Amino acid sequence: MPRHKLRIIPLGGLGEIGKNMLAIEYANDIIVVDAGLMFPKEDMLGVDLVIPDIGYLLERRQKLRGIVITHGHEDHIGALPYILPQLDLPIYSTKLTQGLISVKLKEHRYLKKAKLTTIQAGGKFSLGSFTVEPFSVCHSIPDSVGLIVHTPIGIVVHSGDFKIDYTPVDGKPTELAKLAQLGDQKVLLLLADSTYAELPGYTPSESVVGETLERIIAEAPGRVIITTFSSLVSRIQQVIDAAAKHQRHVFVIGRSMRNTARMASELGYLNSPPGVLRRFEELHHFPHNKVVLLTTGSQGEPTSALVRIANRDNSQVRIIPGDTVVMSATPVPGNEALVNRTVDSLFRQGAQVIYAKLAQVHVHGHGSQEELKLLLSLVKPKFFVPIHGEYRHLSLHANLAKALGMPKTNVFVIENGNILELDQEKCRIAGKLPAGHVYVDGLVMGDLASVILRDRKLLSRDGIVVVIIAIDKKMGKVVGRPDIVSRGFVDKQEGENILDQGRDLVATTLDRSGGRPLEWSFINTKVKDTLGQFFYEQTRRRPMILTTTVEV
Amino acid sequence: MPRHKLRIIPLGGLGEIGKNMLAIEYANDIIVVDAGLMFPKEDMLGVDLVIPDIGYLLERRQKLRGIVITHGHEDHIGALPYILPQLDLPIYSTKLTQGLISVKLKEHRYLKKAKLTTIQAGGKFSLGSFTVEPFSVCHSIPDSVGLIVHTPIGIVVHSGDFKIDYTPVDGKPTELAKLAQLGDQKVLLLLADSTYAELPGYTPSESVVGETLERIIAEAPGRVIITTFSSLVSRIQQVIDAAAKHQRHVFVIGRSMRNTARMASELGYLNSPPGVLRRFEELHHFPHNKVVLLTTGSQGEPTSALVRIANRDNSQVRIIPGDTVVMSATPVPGNEALVNRTVDSLFRQGAQVIYAKLAQVHVHGHGSQEELKLLLSLVKPKFFVPIHGEYRHLSLHANLAKALGMPKTNVFVIENGNILELDQEKCRIAGKLPAGHVYVDGLVMGDLASVILRDRKLLSRDGIVVVIIAIDKKMGKVVGRPDIVSRGFVDKQEGENILDQGRDLVATTLDRSGGRPLEWSFINTKVKDTLGQFFYEQTRRRPMILTTTVEV
Repeated sequence: MPRHKLRIIPLGGLGEIGKNMLAIEYANDIIVVDAGLMFPKEDMLGVDLVIPDIGYLLERRQKLRGIVITHGHEDHIGALPYILPQLDLPIYSTKLTQGLISVKLKEHRYLKKAKLTTIQAGGKFSLGSFTVEPFSVCHSIPDSVGLIVHTPIGIVVHSGDFKIDYTPVDGKPTELAKLAQLGDQKVLLLLADSTYAELPGYTPSESVVGETLERIIAEAPGRVIITTFSSLVSRIQQVIDAAAKHQRHVFVIGRSMRNTARMASELGYLNSPPGVLRRFEELHHFPHNKVVLLTTGSQGEPTSALVRIANRDNSQVRIIPGDTVVMSATPVPGNEALVNRTVDSLFRQGAQVIYAKLAQVHVHGHGSQEELKLLLSLVKPKFFVPIHGEYRHLSLHANLAKALGMPKTNVFVIENGNILELDQEKCRIAGKLPAGHVYVDGLVMGDLASVILRDRKLLSRDGIVVVIIAIDKKMGKVVGRPDIVSRGFVDKQEGENILDQGRDLVATTLDRSGGRPLEWSFINTKVKDTLGQFFYEQTRRRPMILTTTVEV
Repeated sequence: MPRHKLRIIPLGGLGEIGKNMLAIEYANDIIVVDAGLMFPKEDMLGVDLVIPDIGYLLERRQKLRGIVITHGHEDHIGALPYILPQLDLPIYSTKLTQGLISVKLKEHRYLKKAKLTTIQAGGKFSLGSFTVEPFSVCHSIPDSVGLIVHTPIGIVVHSGDFKIDYTPVDGKPTELAKLAQLGDQKVLLLLADSTYAELPGYTPSESVVGETLERIIAEAPGRVIITTFSSLVSRIQQVIDAAAKHQRHVFVIGRSMRNTARMASELGYLNSPPGVLRRFEELHHFPHNKVVLLTTGSQGEPTSALVRIANRDNSQVRIIPGDTVVMSATPVPGNEALVNRTVDSLFRQGAQVIYAKLAQVHVHGHGSQEELKLLLSLVKPKFFVPIHGEYRHLSLHANLAKALGMPKTNVFVIENGNILELDQEKCRIAGKLPAGHVYVDGLVMGDLASVILRDRKLLSRDGIVVVIIAIDKKMGKVVGRPDIVSRGFVDKQEGENILDQGRDLVATTLDRSGGRPLEWSFINTKVKDTLGQFFYEQTRRRPMILTTTVEV
């Protein structure tokens, strides 16, 4: 019996567990699955990005064998430019995923140094004592894979992000048969996507969206403007197909949409009959009912083409009555308000807007409860660890597994940084790593001190008041009248009086020292207390108060 | 034919049109419908509340006849304490609504001065040349009404917030027959709730929730902890009924939930069989499977009872395995993240959590498309103006009316501040008032200068750097080395060096003036540009830079 234990460590995902990165470790080998990023939550003021904390990996450099990427979404590849300079590892990914990684690394001027290796579903490759066998899964980007990892103590299956679609646009369904065959080989551990564990039933096929889009394009009296995620290549394909069928031409607008369409075409993931895709300059050659515009902006991004159009801020396209706009995407959590505002503006401009609540113009890329049960039933793992989802999703996914008859003691809900340790008989949470993730704020990467975030939060609430006190170096006494400036606290008119009274108050407070030399801590506390109380009484606001002395 | 035109002016609602306040004006009379508030959106940093702009009303004081309130939700009554001191008008409302208004005015020490009049569905009262006839509607709070307003030029129907529920908990369905009879009398204008105009079909009856709650309570192995909106009295009733049926006792926790339960009981809106409602102190007398806890916290409010319980921060109640928590509410837009975090924490503590995605433990209080069509078909108005909803909801509601055969030219989608003017033949948007709403930030009420909000936004992003330059009063020259302090920009360790270099840079920049007296505008611009660029190069952050001089 092997002496070592297998370790599974979810290393990244803000709230979502194991989403951005997960490590699989055995004896002297570690492989890393995915290297993605998250966008900051509301309370992380000023933070640009959040990436996984790779401290555990840095301490075990000599064990690292490579990074295997399951698919090309930001939350699975976005951290590469930030971690590769620290961890110069080979990257294994399918062709389209590699294309997307290359674009990203090029932007960060790291492409030449990167070691990129193409893998494909059905292939096999070795990384130390592991053998990795990628298999096709359906997800909202082509060329997605799950991983069968053969380890010295048994098979680990990592589902990647997946759903089961019997009629996918790219013709590559999730490889159920391969997984079923594994089931007979006694899979030791299944790690599976929990994102939609809340949803009963099955996630509809992409083909349902295709039908809806075709109907909309067929019936629209004028132009059809469609927005979706630029990485959702299959949706772009559906738009092209529907347009072609109804003798319309497709014009792509928005930088990221154009880039993806070009790359996906070059790599063979996007096929357009001749004459359907047209250059934007040709737009005015065609009548409105022959036009489909495909654009960025599905998340209401303020600088995107669609949002500029909605705000009459795009010099080339204006909404005219008769336009139909299709939001072929749902808002990512946190983007709801931006998307709603965009839809409102489009209606205001006279467009008819069709979005997911009104018609099936989008389906998501993750399996619902019946699909999750199917996977569990086919793979028949000994141990099960739900991943990719927030804690409640994992809990519900674990409930599903138990309802299917798995022993409670073989199902583990873990969190980022938990170290799951298993051998062929037992599995347990053996430890917890300290940090969860790393903030990227400008050029700084690291545990962005919580004091900075707290200060930004305070500043955002009621602004700041700066008190400047000049002190005579020799005598240690106040010189002149203290000065006060403020930002974000009160406006010029209403504020002048209050700030002026504040100056007097500080002067009076300092006078009370009766000519004795002033101590900094005394000034600081006294001024803050007195002014804070005064401002609160006057305005019910609590600005941050910063006292500083100038020695003269 | 009457010489005057009828004016309809939606005056308040942040994004939602006519939600918080709407004015109906004819000749020398104005009545105001509702006086509610909104909570600020994300980008309104530090703002406490948003209330309607009553400038239009203040300019026409002599015309104002009273405020009629449709129901007791915050977004319909919450602005009263802020506007009554300026507009001392009589308030007309049903009994429960009046109870809720009284609680609110008492808190603001305005109850004694307020002129409150009770109205009831089926009654009639005159306000100037208007006669107002309230009618019962179903909504997520009892005692809700819509208004039939008889004006000198015809009938205006205002739906209030409504849905159609044939089996409501309080036994008071929406009065369809009364509305149908109106239809024969030729209604001039219908103003109707559009909140759920996106949803096809019918909104389910509250009784569906009752059945789900009863099943959960019957099957739960241990305690059942239920949270809902404290104003949702019918839900509280359903919990009491289900608990009574299964020999459980109900314990109410959370201040607002206790207050509402007490007041609703006193006014006869809540009925509990003897012995079912118990004092909290008796909790430990009962086994877990005899207990139902009813608590605040359905929106994940950080100081609510449920959130404290979820965070192991409540001294009296801790989650134990076997607990079932029911979130009998959906998150109000903007609260999703807070609610999700609460659910995650409850799962982490070992509870089973049931929420709206998993079972029908909540239905909302607004009519879906079939109900909206029913109302339109019964009332048969000449003109139709959708209200209560964001622009897209109104547009979709307008589409419904047109699909039912209403002439396009008789359907108006308007915005807050629009002045709709109509006579018996024609209707048009005749003007637009300048402002939309008023911010309440501490004690200040008014058009919170956009510069303050912009500053707070800047401050929240990358913090602030304050540069203090001492200048010799007589010579107009810099004295000593400039000082720099910062907050929310860089942390102590990483930052010390950068700030120190910044000081040198400022000193060098100022030195270049070569001994000439310095002008303030020169210092200001020069320092900001130089430092801004330096900090951006070093950190990729752009803190607000505030330069101030001290004359010594």
